[in-house]
Amino acid sequence: MFITVLVRGRDRPGLLKDIASVITSSGGNILFGLSYSEEGRASSLFIVEYRDECKNVVEALRCVDGVEEVTLEASNKAYALYVEFLERYPAMTSELVRFLTPNDFLEVLIRLPQEKRSSLYILVPPDYLGQLLVHAPQEIIDEAARVAVPKRLAEAIAFLPPDDAADVLQSLPPQVRRTVFEYLPKEFREAVKPLLQYPPESAGGIMTTSVVVLRKDITVREAVEVLKKSRAEIRDVIYVVDEHNRLLGYIPVPDLFKEDRNASLESVVRRDFIAVDPMVDREEVAKIMIRHDLSRVPVVDSDGRFLGVVSLDDVVDALVAEYSEDILLLGGIAKLPRFRYLTARLSTLFYRRFMWLIVIYLIESVTASVIKSYEGLIARTAVLAAFIPLLLDTGGNIGSQSATLITRALALGEVTRRDILAVVAKEFSVALLLGGALSSVAFVLALLVTSLDLEVALTVALSLVIVVLVADLMGALLPLAATSFGIDPAVMSNPLITTVVDVIGVMFYFTVASLML
Amino acid sequence: MFITVLVRGRDRPGLLKDIASVITSSGGNILFGLSYSEEGRASSLFIVEYRDECKNVVEALRCVDGVEEVTLEASNKAYALYVEFLERYPAMTSELVRFLTPNDFLEVLIRLPQEKRSSLYILVPPDYLGQLLVHAPQEIIDEAARVAVPKRLAEAIAFLPPDDAADVLQSLPPQVRRTVFEYLPKEFREAVKPLLQYPPESAGGIMTTSVVVLRKDITVREAVEVLKKSRAEIRDVIYVVDEHNRLLGYIPVPDLFKEDRNASLESVVRRDFIAVDPMVDREEVAKIMIRHDLSRVPVVDSDGRFLGVVSLDDVVDALVAEYSEDILLLGGIAKLPRFRYLTARLSTLFYRRFMWLIVIYLIESVTASVIKSYEGLIARTAVLAAFIPLLLDTGGNIGSQSATLITRALALGEVTRRDILAVVAKEFSVALLLGGALSSVAFVLALLVTSLDLEVALTVALSLVIVVLVADLMGALLPLAATSFGIDPAVMSNPLITTVVDVIGVMFYFTVASLML
Repeated sequence: MFITVLVRGRDRPGLLKDIASVITSSGGNILFGLSYSEEGRASSLFIVEYRDECKNVVEALRCVDGVEEVTLEASNKAYALYVEFLERYPAMTSELVRFLTPNDFLEVLIRLPQEKRSSLYILVPPDYLGQLLVHAPQEIIDEAARVAVPKRLAEAIAFLPPDDAADVLQSLPPQVRRTVFEYLPKEFREAVKPLLQYPPESAGGIMTTSVVVLRKDITVREAVEVLKKSRAEIRDVIYVVDEHNRLLGYIPVPDLFKEDRNASLESVVRRDFIAVDPMVDREEVAKIMIRHDLSRVPVVDSDGRFLGVVSLDDVVDALVAEYSEDILLLGGIAKLPRFRYLTARLSTLFYRRFMWLIVIYLIESVTASVIKSYEGLIARTAVLAAFIPLLLDTGGNIGSQSATLITRALALGEVTRRDILAVVAKEFSVALLLGGALSSVAFVLALLVTSLDLEVALTVALSLVIVVLVADLMGALLPLAATSFGIDPAVMSNPLITTVVDVIGVMFYFTVASLML
Repeated sequence: MFITVLVRGRDRPGLLKDIASVITSSGGNILFGLSYSEEGRASSLFIVEYRDECKNVVEALRCVDGVEEVTLEASNKAYALYVEFLERYPAMTSELVRFLTPNDFLEVLIRLPQEKRSSLYILVPPDYLGQLLVHAPQEIIDEAARVAVPKRLAEAIAFLPPDDAADVLQSLPPQVRRTVFEYLPKEFREAVKPLLQYPPESAGGIMTTSVVVLRKDITVREAVEVLKKSRAEIRDVIYVVDEHNRLLGYIPVPDLFKEDRNASLESVVRRDFIAVDPMVDREEVAKIMIRHDLSRVPVVDSDGRFLGVVSLDDVVDALVAEYSEDILLLGGIAKLPRFRYLTARLSTLFYRRFMWLIVIYLIESVTASVIKSYEGLIARTAVLAAFIPLLLDTGGNIGSQSATLITRALALGEVTRRDILAVVAKEFSVALLLGGALSSVAFVLALLVTSLDLEVALTVALSLVIVVLVADLMGALLPLAATSFGIDPAVMSNPLITTVVDVIGVMFYFTVASLML
């Protein structure tokens, strides 16, 4: 287990030696240390390997003369500590990356100021840079493409499996992409090229071609020989094709132990596979894999020819990305590929949020006009205004709740368009229950606020039942309608539903009020 | 490829024969067929296997004399068709399940009326029932536990890998669980018992113990012999332990081909593994696996003793479950384990939604009182009421947007509590931009609605800037505060933030209004 230790204090001769000896005697093996002193204050950063738990090291360090502050964190969480040190000593990067996975280093990177970050892309080893780019948000890729020369980028990308390489290439600005592509080794270029023709979010875009594919007439013995030498990404399963490269099936490698060495692959191949088309959306692939409990799914073209394999880990990335997109949409923020909050530009954040808000303003101006048309009524019974927020908020919340339930069920494949009647029946019943319960509460509440104005309280309670019913059904039906038109149901985000419900809510409220009062 | 074909029409002698011959001549192989006639109308359901695409079969069937309606669906989407037939012929279940994965059959099951469903649990083969229970929502498990005898449940569960078996056992009502456990084979009981001691959402709860674990002094040759006979769930990697059962490392099975047959496992074991503690939350395990690109992670106790293995597919299930819980929470619906919309009881849906709404009512009653206290002002300038929805909705939406951004970033591990300053700086800048842009739009809008009442328009615009700033920062800070107190940030759901922003919004609005007007 790696631990990062930061010690700060008053500088004095021998301080570093004392700290190091405390760490060593606590059972730690110092892998890396960096210290500096500034205006009489010393700061030291250590990466320490502990076999067991590191007990009492913090207490022991605090007892060292001069030490004032000790921070200890698992190295993969010590982002803030690394950021501080890298700002001063960028050259430390090449040391630091030995102890951090590319994903962890990325967390450090995105927390550095942009000008400090630029110099780091040339300090990390090329294979590491490749891994960084696979997981990096768009802004970091753009930055690296500006700072690093194409040849270096090509070097980094050539370390990646073909599917990841294709992914990174597709995220590069077009001019850079072309130059980088030319610098890639010829063989690698040919492995990547077929992947570039599919959209990045399709099965073809996320599949890997780095698998063991063998002809059906090969023997088990020969297959084992090929496997021994293979450097393919997927080596625990082999795929068997016929003379036209059409997929016959697969053989799990552990099974090869059991088979007769002289048997042909055709005689031992398992044919019970499910394959997908390269153009199928990655989210759909994920659903198929989860539904059928698959950890790999081969990709074949319309003639059944083998193209590649999608693994569960590619799909997990896809699921995380979809999850994040759905959450953003439901919260009223337009979709963004490779979005990361900390590196996202201000202008991007502004536009993605403003786009939604301005649509909502157009609807709200209708709401305002409706209320304005009841100006006379409000002037007479001003207390009516007091219940506008309660009424509209209830409508908005009820609508959000049912929209969330249905959007989620649609996303998980629990509900399809065909279940519309079951959904309506269920939501209508729940809405009746909620409407009844909430309007009783609202009635009492309105009586209290208005000092027992029975007519206003009745108006509020009655309008509420109607608003709850309408809002609930709209919230449930809008996402269902969206899927029918091939639109992502998450686009019917909660803010949008809330606003539409507002217009309807005030209309009912003031109509009921003008009838009652 | 399996296709389900439903044909309906006017019954006549020879109709079934004609339909069957059209299907056969279209290249289809009929695996299953069920027909019935009622008041002169015939309905036939076929499950057909096609080698290639099934071309023109719909058109050809429509030309058959008497046929009026042809529906064709991939068998894993033909839920509605199966439901209709199972309602009439429940006994068909045992045939049907041969063509459907347990997950697909579950979709059929939850769409059946409850009374029809009950009889089906005894019609499916025990291994199939086991698979069903693994993926079933809580209501279905409860139902099966009521309908099926404990012995049959035990039979079904004994077909499962130990981790899934433990999961199902933990979902059974306690009395049933104990009886079922007693009926399990002794050996199986012992494999499951250690898993039952961990919470279902921990690494220990989702790990499997069905792996190949060998002592370090065994040779490669002996290991291969063990592998040949092994029926373990995970057989493409072997784990190597010392004499105290402490984990030394792992060996990918394809690597065994390359090694000297007489070498000991200790000499070829790979020691670069990352292990997790059994009590770690499954969501955390998922993050670790994604961060380090692992498809398996061993689980070891505090002394390093090997307990089991978590695979990527266990984690995918966990991710999907977390995703679904987060979405529900953000939409203002309290968490539910094993929640499925279609089977969820009305009372459950009502309570989970009502719980939130009633909290919100308490806050809204404050909002109402605040507005009530400005009754005089509203009576004089009734048009002020027209802009309450616009103002509060903007606040609510802005708050939801920033809450969504931060909750998502926290869930994905992109942002931690330590990044609070970066978050505040970013949100403040975005809020200023949004506040400026939106209040200009609102100013123009208010001028139009009020027929050029400059004072009201200024009041609206000015209040809006304040509301946007406050709402944005609250939306960003509440989820961060929640994590600091160890609360799931998704609990700070959008409805809650919207309502809190309402109170603050009306306060600012009417304060500004009473100063300006």
